[in-house]
Amino acid sequence: MAVGQTELPVLHPVDGVRLGTACAGIKYPGRKDLVLIALDENVASAGVFTQNAFCAAPVLIAREHLSTASPQVLVINTGNANAGTGAQGLSDAQAVCQASAALSGCQADEVLPFSTGVIGEAYPLEAVLKGLPDAYAALSKDGWADAAHGILTTDTMPKGVSKKITIDDCEITITGIAKGSGMIRPDMATMLAFIATDASLSDGLLKKCLNNAVENSFNRITVDGDTSTNDACILMATGKSALPLIEEKSGAFQKLCDAVSDVAEYLAQAIIRDGEGATKLVTINVVEGSSEQECKDLAYTIAHSPLVKTALFASDPNWGRILAAVGRAGITDFDINAMSIFLDDVCIVSNGGRAPGYTEASGQAVMDKDEITISINLGRGLHNARVWTCDLSYDYVKINAEYRT
Amino acid sequence: MAVGQTELPVLHPVDGVRLGTACAGIKYPGRKDLVLIALDENVASAGVFTQNAFCAAPVLIAREHLSTASPQVLVINTGNANAGTGAQGLSDAQAVCQASAALSGCQADEVLPFSTGVIGEAYPLEAVLKGLPDAYAALSKDGWADAAHGILTTDTMPKGVSKKITIDDCEITITGIAKGSGMIRPDMATMLAFIATDASLSDGLLKKCLNNAVENSFNRITVDGDTSTNDACILMATGKSALPLIEEKSGAFQKLCDAVSDVAEYLAQAIIRDGEGATKLVTINVVEGSSEQECKDLAYTIAHSPLVKTALFASDPNWGRILAAVGRAGITDFDINAMSIFLDDVCIVSNGGRAPGYTEASGQAVMDKDEITISINLGRGLHNARVWTCDLSYDYVKINAEYRT
Repeated sequence: MAVGQTELPVLHPVDGVRLGTACAGIKYPGRKDLVLIALDENVASAGVFTQNAFCAAPVLIAREHLSTASPQVLVINTGNANAGTGAQGLSDAQAVCQASAALSGCQADEVLPFSTGVIGEAYPLEAVLKGLPDAYAALSKDGWADAAHGILTTDTMPKGVSKKITIDDCEITITGIAKGSGMIRPDMATMLAFIATDASLSDGLLKKCLNNAVENSFNRITVDGDTSTNDACILMATGKSALPLIEEKSGAFQKLCDAVSDVAEYLAQAIIRDGEGATKLVTINVVEGSSEQECKDLAYTIAHSPLVKTALFASDPNWGRILAAVGRAGITDFDINAMSIFLDDVCIVSNGGRAPGYTEASGQAVMDKDEITISINLGRGLHNARVWTCDLSYDYVKINAEYRT
Repeated sequence: MAVGQTELPVLHPVDGVRLGTACAGIKYPGRKDLVLIALDENVASAGVFTQNAFCAAPVLIAREHLSTASPQVLVINTGNANAGTGAQGLSDAQAVCQASAALSGCQADEVLPFSTGVIGEAYPLEAVLKGLPDAYAALSKDGWADAAHGILTTDTMPKGVSKKITIDDCEITITGIAKGSGMIRPDMATMLAFIATDASLSDGLLKKCLNNAVENSFNRITVDGDTSTNDACILMATGKSALPLIEEKSGAFQKLCDAVSDVAEYLAQAIIRDGEGATKLVTINVVEGSSEQECKDLAYTIAHSPLVKTALFASDPNWGRILAAVGRAGITDFDINAMSIFLDDVCIVSNGGRAPGYTEASGQAVMDKDEITISINLGRGLHNARVWTCDLSYDYVKINAEYRT
């Protein structure tokens, strides 16, 4: 069960985008595991992809297609990552593009392929090809919720959100879905996220809007520090709303960016709420650092500490583990007496030791919550960084020790 | 139960070193938790300490005393780390030095204090002071095994080893003990290790011998990536053997260094074998890298990957997780087609994908073992690095979620 989230909110259609989901029987019979997203002509798309050196075959192809053509179709399968599959994997991903293009009446290089699932196993090409016509037949502008289900792997619930804003008296819709639960430490993107809006933007501006949204959402989360081979996040702008083309130096662009960032942040948090075995959503907030990098490094050091994460799981205010993680984060010329550590608004460490007035009871009261903020004030600059993570539980080990069985 | 280790080997006395262990009731009644090590006059000592910015109070004092005086006494308590304890912690550690000096008839600055246990709780000064006379009364050159028990915290078994070598027809003894199981990612030293020899060396040469030994033993292990606030490793040379002072550019120095390194490596491995919840001892061997740093970074990225560690726990040859960890290690200009990955001597990845001839059965056969080597051949240089780690099990979470209860 995801922390603090029980059901998928209403996902509004985005004019110009249709989605179709099918059960291709890739890993389990009767499970939604194949999704087609069909775009009208003249839809602009931008993408960011994993920085893992072992890119999956579909990532290599999607990245290339996105740079040379205007995407008409996105095709996503779960149950197999098509990563570590060498030349055969590339050929299989191309075959999926060709089949999708034939169904949709476009060119193969106008198809972006995505895969998620086990790394290193042969790609189930036959099952995917067999499932494609069903997915195509299901295409509908109301297909977002089914698609949110169709892209899941170890997730316990679908992730999506919709937002309507008004710019210059025009209603603009932004809808996004994402998947991800483990192998989550995105670096330029998360596992898989697809966001669409009916606003109209140039390709360059769309990329700017995406990068801005990703930087403070998907690039600020970690479940286990492991970066996937298949991460991708795509933003599509259909231009179907009444609003004219958005210009860069306009209030409209800022408004849209803010809304897309909100959607991305919601989806990124949803991934952490549903982190493998997660029982808590933890915000790590580092402020007053001498650089943003230093703040990020420190936040991730805490977020990746197995000892901090198991203490969070146990609701144990064992703040010595946070202190030890801060101390090993490699901050140069670090004056431990200038910094302080908070659990929510309870100061636990100041002047290099336990804060005056701190009591175990006050720490325990925060630790008993499902959503906790750990704040570090470095007291040496003007920069800050925020990262979301979850705890480390028995179920994390169970899920990952039994993943392939 | 530690992986592949069942009992403490015979620990030979080292002339010039006496050890006394007592039950001071620091955390549990009747548990050996306080150790005194008394050195004869003219014993040379060298030490390395944690690089964690939040040094424990005893680390600050031991480091200072070691730089200004010749240690006569080492005093070690478990059950409390005296870390994150501010000015009171420093004053308490000083009080322990004074009491130990009074018992032993030396100066307070000739005492090195060490603590290990929970961080951030008030130091149990009264219990330690009450226990010191018992530890002093127990001093004996045969006290190594008791001391190996007396320094443990979450360890499931004591760690020690003894080695006798012959240099220039003289018998030289080297005996060492260590403790450590969690919060293990030493950086210049491990949790606590005390090694003594009856050879005779200058202070400078002793430090050289220690640094050399630590670099490829305690500085090459990780259980959970968390660096302790209390790490320390001390090497003592009593000069009581018949062998004259060892000179730097001599075969004798090389022989002694090799033997001390063997002892350090044995103890470092013993810590990993007894890593919290460990069921496997895993050697990560990175070869043919373009620098030693690159090899170390890659080895630690794999060693810290929760997904690799849970797959190891499950004895699951899910090599895609190793591949994903290699891919995210930040190696610059990385040609994935030039590298290969082995489980023991089974090649699992080459040319960017599953190795020809690899079968699940051959990978499974390796994974079923208790001791496994993961080798990465980067195929781009002459450097290498080796790191030891363990798997991530239910018991790791259990031990660390219940640590303070």
